[in-house]
Amino acid sequence: MRSSEIRELLKLIDRPGMISFAGGIPDPALFNVAAFSAAYGRILGDAAAGARALQYSATEGHPPLRRWIAERMAAQGVSCEPDNILITSGSQQALDLIGKLFLDPGDGVLAAAPTYLGALQSFSAYEPRFLARAEATDDVKLIYLVPDFDNPTGETMDAAARQRALEIADRHDAWIVEDGAYAALRYEGEDVAPVAAFDQRRAGSIDEIRTLYCGTFSKTLSPALRIGWICGPRAVISRLTLIQQVGDLHTSTINQMAMHEVAVSSYDDQVARARDVYRSRRDTMLAALARHAPEGLSWTRPKGGLFIWLTLPAAMDAAALLQRAIARDVAFVPGAAFFFDGSGSDRLRLSFSLSGEAAIDEGIERLCMLVREEIDVPIPAAAIGA
Amino acid sequence: MRSSEIRELLKLIDRPGMISFAGGIPDPALFNVAAFSAAYGRILGDAAAGARALQYSATEGHPPLRRWIAERMAAQGVSCEPDNILITSGSQQALDLIGKLFLDPGDGVLAAAPTYLGALQSFSAYEPRFLARAEATDDVKLIYLVPDFDNPTGETMDAAARQRALEIADRHDAWIVEDGAYAALRYEGEDVAPVAAFDQRRAGSIDEIRTLYCGTFSKTLSPALRIGWICGPRAVISRLTLIQQVGDLHTSTINQMAMHEVAVSSYDDQVARARDVYRSRRDTMLAALARHAPEGLSWTRPKGGLFIWLTLPAAMDAAALLQRAIARDVAFVPGAAFFFDGSGSDRLRLSFSLSGEAAIDEGIERLCMLVREEIDVPIPAAAIGA
Repeated sequence: MRSSEIRELLKLIDRPGMISFAGGIPDPALFNVAAFSAAYGRILGDAAAGARALQYSATEGHPPLRRWIAERMAAQGVSCEPDNILITSGSQQALDLIGKLFLDPGDGVLAAAPTYLGALQSFSAYEPRFLARAEATDDVKLIYLVPDFDNPTGETMDAAARQRALEIADRHDAWIVEDGAYAALRYEGEDVAPVAAFDQRRAGSIDEIRTLYCGTFSKTLSPALRIGWICGPRAVISRLTLIQQVGDLHTSTINQMAMHEVAVSSYDDQVARARDVYRSRRDTMLAALARHAPEGLSWTRPKGGLFIWLTLPAAMDAAALLQRAIARDVAFVPGAAFFFDGSGSDRLRLSFSLSGEAAIDEGIERLCMLVREEIDVPIPAAAIGA
Repeated sequence: MRSSEIRELLKLIDRPGMISFAGGIPDPALFNVAAFSAAYGRILGDAAAGARALQYSATEGHPPLRRWIAERMAAQGVSCEPDNILITSGSQQALDLIGKLFLDPGDGVLAAAPTYLGALQSFSAYEPRFLARAEATDDVKLIYLVPDFDNPTGETMDAAARQRALEIADRHDAWIVEDGAYAALRYEGEDVAPVAAFDQRRAGSIDEIRTLYCGTFSKTLSPALRIGWICGPRAVISRLTLIQQVGDLHTSTINQMAMHEVAVSSYDDQVARARDVYRSRRDTMLAALARHAPEGLSWTRPKGGLFIWLTLPAAMDAAALLQRAIARDVAFVPGAAFFFDGSGSDRLRLSFSLSGEAAIDEGIERLCMLVREEIDVPIPAAAIGA
């Protein structure tokens, strides 16, 4: 099944009664609509501030928002100034700008397989080669990592793995692109410092690191304002700023101002609330899997983020399973959508972010039933060469 | 003087007492802050609509906004459906997406000299060759035009010139990129239909034209929301949508919803008000030039837009003039900033959008005085080879 066919299939899931574990998006019920309403109201309630909010602004970003982000980065061990922050239209634009700055046709991009293909697609425009592992002789320009609660696997790199990533980057004189999209959503255990923080510890200064940290408010406060950021050495931030300037001038002025107000007033509360809700949905999904799964089905146990990653028994095909699943009103994303090398047909990604706990239990039961039926189907004679 | 030096110089103009004719931006006093305040308030006042406004949305854009724009395009003679419209983060992103889709290294881009260099800079990332005129044998992929109230010259292409542009595009099998940034701001005379409309008249259908119309709300309602659009054949819009999707996913959901509300409630009134204000500033600037200009200074008489374009007498250098002008609290953009071929040193662009009428008269008087002083300076002996 081609990815366009899977996309068509997934369009069917937006119907009543469907239990969707497909979309890797935040639950809109968690958005603090009142806080955003108050922020836009306050900004536009004053004629002078309102006129500024509606005018062009500097590409680098709204200064108070850059400062707020710099302080938050510092609290995570990445000591930096507002000048080290570029505000982008979501972290997807951050990835695109980085690709545009660094990649020439044929350059190597090292990334896990599976990984977030949206990142690799943004790099694809610049025609690099994607590598799942790098030999000593490979030319590697960028290393793309989602160290915390990876999309799609849900897994987290420990401190040793982060150090190793830096060693690989050193060996290849490569830049690390650290995608921190899910980093705020930890449900258990201790935070591991960003790769950028490990990098800074040895480099001494933010301006000497080789890691570009890409952050976003999309999974915590709201994706719709399209506000993300890049934190990195000043010299790189300046060059990325020029690229953004010719790309779309700047990120929305009014949205940056509103996001800053909401971040100041309610970031910590919002994150705490999202953690509570998503933690218990994760627990429900893990418990349902433990209860309903047939033998041979295995899955990850993420400490945060939005995803659980399943391996089907007996090389079962996840795309074919999706067709049958949709007929029974349950949906997921087949694993092949996360592999740039065409593998992963027996994997699938479940997102626990959008469904209530009863629906999660029901959906997992249906899904496991389908897998079980598939296992029990007698093998057609033709398939064993009889 | 290099363009980076000019940029540094122009940073000095943001000080009290400065009369700036530099920025090509709308007067923030004209923004309808109350209408935007009401729009965000209404959208976020309802919990369900508010949650939708804060969530991810389709790359193509907010359906009611696409419909509103399609109707407006139709009223200008470009008969089209919402599917022919892609919402972008300002028309700057529109240009970048078009460059990314069509341009390969070495491809020809035909553009006027002078022109809006921001457009050419967005194309530059894809390494084309810029041509000020095309020979029959030249390979031309894109033709970039600002047919209405051009930046920087203020001039408008008549119907015959638009037809000729289409003939040139046909001859080279090229796409026309029609930048309609200023088209709504006409102060006298009759509208000329967009090049896209002339194209459609002969092609029969929007899906058969070779013109991509780039529109924006930046010069009429607000630049800060970063909302522009591309209107063109469905097949091209689909491909541009995929490029935008990997570039930054989509344009801000909430801003598209708010812009739609403001467009419905007050687009026509806002445009009428902006026309009145800018028309009288243009008239004031033209009258001041007529009153104060020394012999040898010439300028355009734009029928709309934000700019008047000056040619200095005796090959005077506009960048050197800017340095002296800033010392006397008046600023403009030297003409070389609009030529990709390095010429234009004796030209300059004046914007009349940001200053009140007394300031315009005062600023033009100072500027003309400086030009006059420059003319009267005795020619140094060295310069005539003595």
